[in-house]
Amino acid sequence: MLARGLRLLGAFSAEHPAQTLSELARRADLPVSTAHRLAGELVDWGALERGDDGRFRVGLRLWEVAALAPRGSALRERALPFLEDLSQITRENVQLAVREGGEVVFVERIAGSGAVPVLTRVGGRFAPTATGVGLVLLAHAPPDVQEEALAGPVERYTPYTVTDPRALRGMLADVRSSGFAVSDRQVTDDALSVAAPVHDGRGQVVAAVSLVVRHGSASPLALAPLVRTSARAIGRALG
Amino acid sequence: MLARGLRLLGAFSAEHPAQTLSELARRADLPVSTAHRLAGELVDWGALERGDDGRFRVGLRLWEVAALAPRGSALRERALPFLEDLSQITRENVQLAVREGGEVVFVERIAGSGAVPVLTRVGGRFAPTATGVGLVLLAHAPPDVQEEALAGPVERYTPYTVTDPRALRGMLADVRSSGFAVSDRQVTDDALSVAAPVHDGRGQVVAAVSLVVRHGSASPLALAPLVRTSARAIGRALG
Repeated sequence: MLARGLRLLGAFSAEHPAQTLSELARRADLPVSTAHRLAGELVDWGALERGDDGRFRVGLRLWEVAALAPRGSALRERALPFLEDLSQITRENVQLAVREGGEVVFVERIAGSGAVPVLTRVGGRFAPTATGVGLVLLAHAPPDVQEEALAGPVERYTPYTVTDPRALRGMLADVRSSGFAVSDRQVTDDALSVAAPVHDGRGQVVAAVSLVVRHGSASPLALAPLVRTSARAIGRALG
Repeated sequence: MLARGLRLLGAFSAEHPAQTLSELARRADLPVSTAHRLAGELVDWGALERGDDGRFRVGLRLWEVAALAPRGSALRERALPFLEDLSQITRENVQLAVREGGEVVFVERIAGSGAVPVLTRVGGRFAPTATGVGLVLLAHAPPDVQEEALAGPVERYTPYTVTDPRALRGMLADVRSSGFAVSDRQVTDDALSVAAPVHDGRGQVVAAVSLVVRHGSASPLALAPLVRTSARAIGRALG
């Protein structure tokens, strides 16, 4: 029953943040009667909320509990002052991400005023091979995670997306030796991101920070020291 | 079993974000064997994570789902650009909160550089009578919620905290007529907050925004137009 309740929670997505009972039941692959009973329990606790329109949404109490996730809100809270400094000084997009298995989860995104549009969303996932933060996190991931990411069909977003495993392997080695990653128009045609690793007190890479700017507006080599400095400051704040 | 699993999630708090199995079982009031089995299911799904130290923490996947909560992350995401404008222009603390029953939940807090310290935490709860955002949200709450808040023992934080129900009732009426609330040293001895309501497209008050400054550094009447303008802009962005 717990697993089924979690399936109901997992049926929510950025595309479907509000759902009727029958939509929920279908997406969670549960009989409507079961979904009805479990959704009722989730509403009672506050994990879901039901609106005037009869649709279910993720509830505030779940959000409150989730605010205690060390790799989500807690990391974000510690990092936010530094991300804001970076945002105010550059007026560009600033992003913070962590790795979950073979994927990248965006924990924070501050959109610069007039900055280039980006595809990311807080709480959203992305394949690791195309973004700057993804390349950083993958470069410091265990070998089996790297191999799996390079073996799979690598998603292509633009003509510039690097999908060749050999080329990607070289990029990851460069990230480790240089201390930063560059994704040049690999996600959208007009954006360039420069990312750097955040190390925790034990030297583990626990997150990555990036600046995303319009392609051609700044050189990656000029941005890298900024991003690396900010990433180190965040690591220091994590202690 | 779902209700028990939720009790495990509810056992996490800002004071106890990482817990051993026996701590969890005790706080959730469950036998250790039950807690063990349910915690395992929660880890499998990603609602909890277990660290190298054997302790359980709230997991990233729960945080990802919770990022879909309309009154949590989704509201925060829409409001953030306006909150950042307010923060950059004033360099003071900016807060965004919603009402959950008779309590106030802080959805965002941007700490100004050098701003006065505040007690609030993103995802944290607060009694509604002392804070500026709480007074705004309570002033626009249904009558029964107001009565319950005023009837209870009203929490006192400083010698300036207003606890008299009659005085509070008068303050709530002032909030409704003036369009903003002032909390003058009611939470900490040195802080003053000015708050205004955020209306959604249907005219409902769905959130409140505040500026928290050092007492004596600015007049509430000077801050009110700023906060009200920002609150209206956020309402407009909510559509």
